[in-house]
Amino acid sequence: MTVKKDIEIAQETPMEPIADVAAKVGIPADCLEPYGKYKAKLSFDYLKQLQDRPDGKLILVTAINPTKAGEGKSTTTVGLGDALNLRGQKTMMALREPSLGPVFGLKGGATGGGYAQVVPMEDINLHFTGDMHAITTTNNLVCAALDNSIYQGNPLHIDPENVTFKRCMDMNDRTLRNITIGQGAKVNGVERKDGFNITVASEIMAALCLADDLMDLKERFANMLVAYTYDGDPVYVRDLGIQGAMAMVMKDAILPNIVQTLEHNPVLIHGGPFANIAHGCNSVIATRACLKLADYTVTEAGFGADLGAEKFLDIKCRLAGLHPNAVVIVATIRALKQHGGVAFEDLKEENVDAMLAGCGNLAKHIDTIQQFGLPYVIAINQFATDTEKEIAALENWCKENGHPMSLSQVWAKGGEGALDLADQVMALCDQENHYAPLYDVNEPIEQKIETIASKVYGADGVDFTDEAKAQIETFNQMGWDKLPICMAKTQMSLTDNGKIMGRPQGFRITVRELRPSLGAGFIVALTGKVLTMPGLPKHPSALDMDIDENGKIVGLF
Amino acid sequence: MTVKKDIEIAQETPMEPIADVAAKVGIPADCLEPYGKYKAKLSFDYLKQLQDRPDGKLILVTAINPTKAGEGKSTTTVGLGDALNLRGQKTMMALREPSLGPVFGLKGGATGGGYAQVVPMEDINLHFTGDMHAITTTNNLVCAALDNSIYQGNPLHIDPENVTFKRCMDMNDRTLRNITIGQGAKVNGVERKDGFNITVASEIMAALCLADDLMDLKERFANMLVAYTYDGDPVYVRDLGIQGAMAMVMKDAILPNIVQTLEHNPVLIHGGPFANIAHGCNSVIATRACLKLADYTVTEAGFGADLGAEKFLDIKCRLAGLHPNAVVIVATIRALKQHGGVAFEDLKEENVDAMLAGCGNLAKHIDTIQQFGLPYVIAINQFATDTEKEIAALENWCKENGHPMSLSQVWAKGGEGALDLADQVMALCDQENHYAPLYDVNEPIEQKIETIASKVYGADGVDFTDEAKAQIETFNQMGWDKLPICMAKTQMSLTDNGKIMGRPQGFRITVRELRPSLGAGFIVALTGKVLTMPGLPKHPSALDMDIDENGKIVGLF
Repeated sequence: MTVKKDIEIAQETPMEPIADVAAKVGIPADCLEPYGKYKAKLSFDYLKQLQDRPDGKLILVTAINPTKAGEGKSTTTVGLGDALNLRGQKTMMALREPSLGPVFGLKGGATGGGYAQVVPMEDINLHFTGDMHAITTTNNLVCAALDNSIYQGNPLHIDPENVTFKRCMDMNDRTLRNITIGQGAKVNGVERKDGFNITVASEIMAALCLADDLMDLKERFANMLVAYTYDGDPVYVRDLGIQGAMAMVMKDAILPNIVQTLEHNPVLIHGGPFANIAHGCNSVIATRACLKLADYTVTEAGFGADLGAEKFLDIKCRLAGLHPNAVVIVATIRALKQHGGVAFEDLKEENVDAMLAGCGNLAKHIDTIQQFGLPYVIAINQFATDTEKEIAALENWCKENGHPMSLSQVWAKGGEGALDLADQVMALCDQENHYAPLYDVNEPIEQKIETIASKVYGADGVDFTDEAKAQIETFNQMGWDKLPICMAKTQMSLTDNGKIMGRPQGFRITVRELRPSLGAGFIVALTGKVLTMPGLPKHPSALDMDIDENGKIVGLF
Repeated sequence: MTVKKDIEIAQETPMEPIADVAAKVGIPADCLEPYGKYKAKLSFDYLKQLQDRPDGKLILVTAINPTKAGEGKSTTTVGLGDALNLRGQKTMMALREPSLGPVFGLKGGATGGGYAQVVPMEDINLHFTGDMHAITTTNNLVCAALDNSIYQGNPLHIDPENVTFKRCMDMNDRTLRNITIGQGAKVNGVERKDGFNITVASEIMAALCLADDLMDLKERFANMLVAYTYDGDPVYVRDLGIQGAMAMVMKDAILPNIVQTLEHNPVLIHGGPFANIAHGCNSVIATRACLKLADYTVTEAGFGADLGAEKFLDIKCRLAGLHPNAVVIVATIRALKQHGGVAFEDLKEENVDAMLAGCGNLAKHIDTIQQFGLPYVIAINQFATDTEKEIAALENWCKENGHPMSLSQVWAKGGEGALDLADQVMALCDQENHYAPLYDVNEPIEQKIETIASKVYGADGVDFTDEAKAQIETFNQMGWDKLPICMAKTQMSLTDNGKIMGRPQGFRITVRELRPSLGAGFIVALTGKVLTMPGLPKHPSALDMDIDENGKIVGLF
């Protein structure tokens, strides 16, 4: 049997007009700003109208530490949302916007897979409604204005060797990581070292995703740190005076995008910050809109529970005043085997013992969710290569340890494949819970980081480099210390070493560097090296992509 | 009396739904891809349906050598189109898309002015429907793929010191003109010199504007020269193998955008290549669609007749098989005074003698249009500072020299201000004409350039630098010589020195360098320095821009 490609399944499923999809949750057609027939933004005025409505239930989909192929969080989110709709519950999904750059590399789509997809997947994975481009432009306007200020007499006394805000591009382009700009004749500006991040790593993206509205976003822009003066004083966007122009550029990008699942249920896709250098969740604006419009909102957070869920619960929910009702922890038998010591190439082969050995990783993420005071269910995202023995052993492990679980077949069956999961999730949402963030933002920076490392990663402690210590001292003096922490750590492991699988114990975390994201509203703590500009592989996916004379795309996933 | 700003006039004029505007030229609502309520793209299928219809009449709006404030070509194009509609003629306008980057500098809007504007002007001048962003992405995909190929073992033997295709960004950012990329550790790619152009200077833009359709565009992409090997052999996009992915990225950007004038007449805005390094005209696809849909199409070409009109007539019309019917030459009394020796700061003061002395510049452009075999009318774009004496003297000059003219008041009155111009244009369109390009593409490169220099600029001859001579030799060997020439020259003067006003005589043109734009399908001949990445001024417009809590924009023009 040939397995159909995601794009083939998507292309053979007719879509409904987006106004019909939006009508399912009561959105009037004239409150949509259409982008073609199958995509729209919710209008500026309509978002304001929603504000006083009560909130529905909020379900977070997270995962164990993934293999490099991912665990299927988006797929599970979409399938669970479709299943809740099949159960007659008015349900929406809130997802992150895919980055265009990695599409040309080797990344899969970011719109789910199989029969649990969001469509039109080609558009969503390409330019969508232009939000990424608006973010790129806003980011690079800051840089152009900053370098222009240096060039035009440097009235702010910016030290060209101490500029912290980088340019960005939505492209996997390793040669832009470290560059020198302003070379040649004097009219070409002042020479200095610089670099590009990929757009999803821009602080503009993180700020968009945590903003309440356009005025709040403008304020966040104004607060962004861009450089230091020769005297070491901070220079903010407000000193450049371009926060108004930046907000203007973002006027459409701030509106959430509505699309549909293959089963024609409404999904908001809006914002997609990196889950390491930033917090990895879709926009607060989109999540809030879903909560106002639907009885159930299913959302996801990037990577495993150690990164995405921790930040969702410690940063996003705290800052936005959201109260989640249940958590779904996605695991695959493949990833559990990897945590039990099996190499990526051998994951297709049955190995019950390795799988059971790898369950420690799952157990740690369960422990984390419990510490946040939230009820959970494990969703086993079933693959064709999973054997009956493996599934039975995993079911048994869950039963013995008292963990609720459900076998999810959404890739193969869509919403029908997650009806049991949906039933369990609804039951969890009826429970009272005692969600609270893990730390108080008023605690010292070191203490906040140590709390995350010990409670979420299971580390014995945290080592701070001398550079990090000096930065913490500076942040304290500047008054930047009362912010939540955004940990930048490998997603592959609970430790800061991506090669250590399972549930490691007796290890320490090293914090190398701290960065103030004052517009986003958090402090980034970097452990290990975090790449904020990917590269293309030897055979980029772009080589296999094409479009024919009828506009049909091939080779995109 | 306070003069209203363009943005104020635009914001106080209610727009009609774009489907109603499109219906005026018979476009069915389901053949539109809406982008909000007031912008749309013509659908892929609808464009194909139009192909067999007969063509309407084609009117080109060009100008004398402008002041740095421009002569009002877009304003005249819009006003003339509105006037023809007032006369009961089914008329569309085909305009260029504005570049976003210069908006943050000091440039005025590119959507006309006063009561002759295209709306929604904020959107058109900002992201519009994302075409510029798609072009930026397509351009930078080439660069990422190229540098990745060098990094991944360099199978094409690309010489990193001989890469001809630059990155681009839609931003005025002088510090990106000359940069070094790929610095630091080996994993950051291979170090080499590079630079960014502004997006409108990208060959992707030029190719889009000359393409027949998506398959032709893909072919043009494949043919683009990107680098040379260590042996000096050309490397094309087709060697990188990414033309399919590039066409995919451009699938929406290739569709023309429909918007409306303040008088609710339909306008296609599509593509906007630089008028120096490229040919400065909107897309062939948009012009053809207008010709199929309307009885009259009014279009414009960048800068004066020495640049925009020459390229429109020698490049665009030749390659696309278009036959124009009439030419409007826009002049302002202000610019004529400048050509008569008045400084820019003093142009508000009456000076009949200087104006008459400056009429030589107008006379040369008339001569050029006559050499192309086309009937013309002069449109005097009236300013509040023009005096009665000046206007009378100019009318008299036209009468004495037998030049048809019309006083255009479209800025103040919209279409009503160009009814006489419209009547004269209709009469010209009823004349038979003998349009032909000025040279044969099969002539040697030097001869083609000499023809343009002598016939269009009035030069005595052309000097080629040694570098240019060597390049011509190479182009001949490569078989790249049978293409039209795209002159890159200052727009301020008929010569290659921007300070020489009026109608200079006894001068020569120097061609410094030639560049093969093999995807666009022309050879660029550079005279003097051509800046392909602007910078921001000391007080960028961005500082004055803002948006309020209701989404209303201020300070954008």
